[in-house]
Amino acid sequence: MDKLVDRLGSVVGSVVVDPDVLEAHRQDAATFCTAGAPLVLVRPSTTAEVQEVVRAAGEYGVPIVTQGARTGLSGAANAIDGCILLSTARMNQVLEVSVEDQVAVVQPGVINADLSRAVLEQGLFYPPDPSSWEMSTVGGNIATNAGGLCCVKYGVTGDFVRGLEVVLASGEVIRTGRRTVKGVAGYDLTHVIVGSEGTLGIVTEATLALRPAPEAALTAAATFLSIEEGVAAAAAVMGSGLRPSLLEFIDGVTARAIQDYRDMGLPANVGSLLLAQSDRGPRAAEDVAAIAEICTAHGAVDVAVASDAEESAMLLEARRLVHFANEKLGTSLIDDVAVPRSQLVALLHGIDAISKQYDVLIACPGHIGDGNMHPTVIFDQADPAAQARALEAFGAVMDLGLSLGGTITGEHGVGKLKRQWLAQELGPVGLQLQRDVKAAFDPRGLLNPDKLFL
Amino acid sequence: MDKLVDRLGSVVGSVVVDPDVLEAHRQDAATFCTAGAPLVLVRPSTTAEVQEVVRAAGEYGVPIVTQGARTGLSGAANAIDGCILLSTARMNQVLEVSVEDQVAVVQPGVINADLSRAVLEQGLFYPPDPSSWEMSTVGGNIATNAGGLCCVKYGVTGDFVRGLEVVLASGEVIRTGRRTVKGVAGYDLTHVIVGSEGTLGIVTEATLALRPAPEAALTAAATFLSIEEGVAAAAAVMGSGLRPSLLEFIDGVTARAIQDYRDMGLPANVGSLLLAQSDRGPRAAEDVAAIAEICTAHGAVDVAVASDAEESAMLLEARRLVHFANEKLGTSLIDDVAVPRSQLVALLHGIDAISKQYDVLIACPGHIGDGNMHPTVIFDQADPAAQARALEAFGAVMDLGLSLGGTITGEHGVGKLKRQWLAQELGPVGLQLQRDVKAAFDPRGLLNPDKLFL
Repeated sequence: MDKLVDRLGSVVGSVVVDPDVLEAHRQDAATFCTAGAPLVLVRPSTTAEVQEVVRAAGEYGVPIVTQGARTGLSGAANAIDGCILLSTARMNQVLEVSVEDQVAVVQPGVINADLSRAVLEQGLFYPPDPSSWEMSTVGGNIATNAGGLCCVKYGVTGDFVRGLEVVLASGEVIRTGRRTVKGVAGYDLTHVIVGSEGTLGIVTEATLALRPAPEAALTAAATFLSIEEGVAAAAAVMGSGLRPSLLEFIDGVTARAIQDYRDMGLPANVGSLLLAQSDRGPRAAEDVAAIAEICTAHGAVDVAVASDAEESAMLLEARRLVHFANEKLGTSLIDDVAVPRSQLVALLHGIDAISKQYDVLIACPGHIGDGNMHPTVIFDQADPAAQARALEAFGAVMDLGLSLGGTITGEHGVGKLKRQWLAQELGPVGLQLQRDVKAAFDPRGLLNPDKLFL
Repeated sequence: MDKLVDRLGSVVGSVVVDPDVLEAHRQDAATFCTAGAPLVLVRPSTTAEVQEVVRAAGEYGVPIVTQGARTGLSGAANAIDGCILLSTARMNQVLEVSVEDQVAVVQPGVINADLSRAVLEQGLFYPPDPSSWEMSTVGGNIATNAGGLCCVKYGVTGDFVRGLEVVLASGEVIRTGRRTVKGVAGYDLTHVIVGSEGTLGIVTEATLALRPAPEAALTAAATFLSIEEGVAAAAAVMGSGLRPSLLEFIDGVTARAIQDYRDMGLPANVGSLLLAQSDRGPRAAEDVAAIAEICTAHGAVDVAVASDAEESAMLLEARRLVHFANEKLGTSLIDDVAVPRSQLVALLHGIDAISKQYDVLIACPGHIGDGNMHPTVIFDQADPAAQARALEAFGAVMDLGLSLGGTITGEHGVGKLKRQWLAQELGPVGLQLQRDVKAAFDPRGLLNPDKLFL
């Protein structure tokens, strides 16, 4: 293996074997995912360097795990014993922003927020906004098909990926997709690679769709005493044609945690909290007023509507505190089920039942407009029995989501964390076809081989 | 083969060997695409019947060509010698429309317009609207990832496909995707199957996303003396954030053909004509007024804005006459290139040059908001030399589109018609990967084997 490291040193500018650096790169942000010990970390700067790494890995039969900022929540970027970690950190250039074509061409290591700011300077908007957007890379967002808060209006990362440059397991390079808005020339391999968690190829460049920048959003917030009222109000907003640019749900457990964390005047008996935004410029005030009316009609006990950006930010504060507030309660195991919106009440009540059955606290905030919730099992990590119950509850939540016609993951991906449930969601025939597609791209299983499939 | 036909008769309700019926089913609507002589036409009613057909075909090693309404423009549904034609005509049920989840579940043989009307009754909207929508099937739209007029705002067919039930070449059934808005559980096989022209599997059910129905659209129309002005006005509309629900371009050749077909007061020296719509209800009047202003600012010599549905329909009349007007000029060979919007003027001038070089008339209307144009080579079919020049011009248009960073097909697909140019667009590595994906789905090449690839 020393020979492989030497070889890598001769073809890539940055090759690291320092144990501390390798240790720091072993894992992404998923809780309770095992990770192996990597052989080496490489940080190529060009597509040609990526090709050289892949060719060397192929010759030595060593697996490659591609990493962005390691903010993922499923362990997809976790090291495999003896692997090459390929970090895209040095491929961080925005290569082009075209106002006329409304596209950006970027390297995979560009930070989402850097791209967003770069295009905004030209009056354009890159909508995908995962919570990690200040840290996570566009390549990582593509690898997981990351969602975010504004998906409810704009869609997920994949909806903004037009074309990719990809280094295949063979070391060859392909370009998938296109720069144009539409295109149906051959199979859509772009969107197989989006969300494939580094298992099909290594994305070395992406052509992304942009939109004209919207104006600053206005916010409405509504407090309900029950789950049912909040869910019904959200359904009514989604059925109204108003197209909010954000529609978030905060459950009672989370709301109480937030109130304990910082006094926001939330009543102790809060059942649910809805936050909504509209970014339709001069129409935003009308929109949030209409959303507020819908909430009132559905039994909200408190409704607030912002009239400017500052008030909007204040109202959104509760959403920003979700993570910190729940973190204070204990160790978090964040799930990511999505269900048809008609099943949301059943999901929330089912999660309450699971919480009681396994004697763990489960908060359940989420992107309610998309039916994509983040049931968060909270427990004391120092207590092995509690940890075991938490893991069982985590699985029970996914079983529940599937039984309601949902999916085990709306935006976080499968990685290492959810491989057994992927098999359950897809069934044996579907799973085998996925494996066959993997083999078509990577017959020797060199690219992130222990992810997605058990 | 008699045994195969007998076998099919025992498993499917409708099995046809009548030569006249088979002859009528040999081809789709593509000009100049060869078609073979089918062995038999089957019209299964259920997924189980489709499975039986596929299993029988597998046992006898006979290829299957799946057909919807045969309105396609690339020969993808054309018969292969000795094949089984599998028509989805009897699988034409809308199985469910859910207002709460904003989804429809349909069989593949449902006519697009029937679905649109069925969901509209419940206040919902199925946006994909290919010109063939009154005749074409949802299954056919999925097979070609059909576009249409309202793509410019809403996207193409694939953007509304959430999940599929698919009979594989093995006869097994899988469900891909989901019913939920978001989902990242495994590779996105749904969108590999969308646009795959019947070569990867047979879609037997689709779960489609719907939206709240918009209000009736208002129309603006603007006439320019040059190509440049019309293209620049369209670019300005797309850059404005107005999000028109339709933005169509009619070139000078087509405009003159329309004027000859029916007096619409179009000047003989028209360079380009833009048609735009907004469906934003109470805001539509504002939007079309803003679009009209943009057109005036870009040199339009005549601008008309509709104030109601009737006037809107009158202004759209020119768009509706494009096909009929060009048909009167001769036989049409319709191309479907898409280019980045910044390359539209170069495309239009290049097409003019090709027209002169090959001594054929080329009209060039198109979905300008998406950069997806339909250069239409018009010639006298009775003149073999003219036909040969037309075919060369058709190829030259695709070469031009590729040289401008575009694609050979924005919405019609590859089928039999564009196989050689697909190879050119994808390059050898990309093409081989597409073949490998085909082999992963259909290792024996039973499903529509002579399409897409040469």
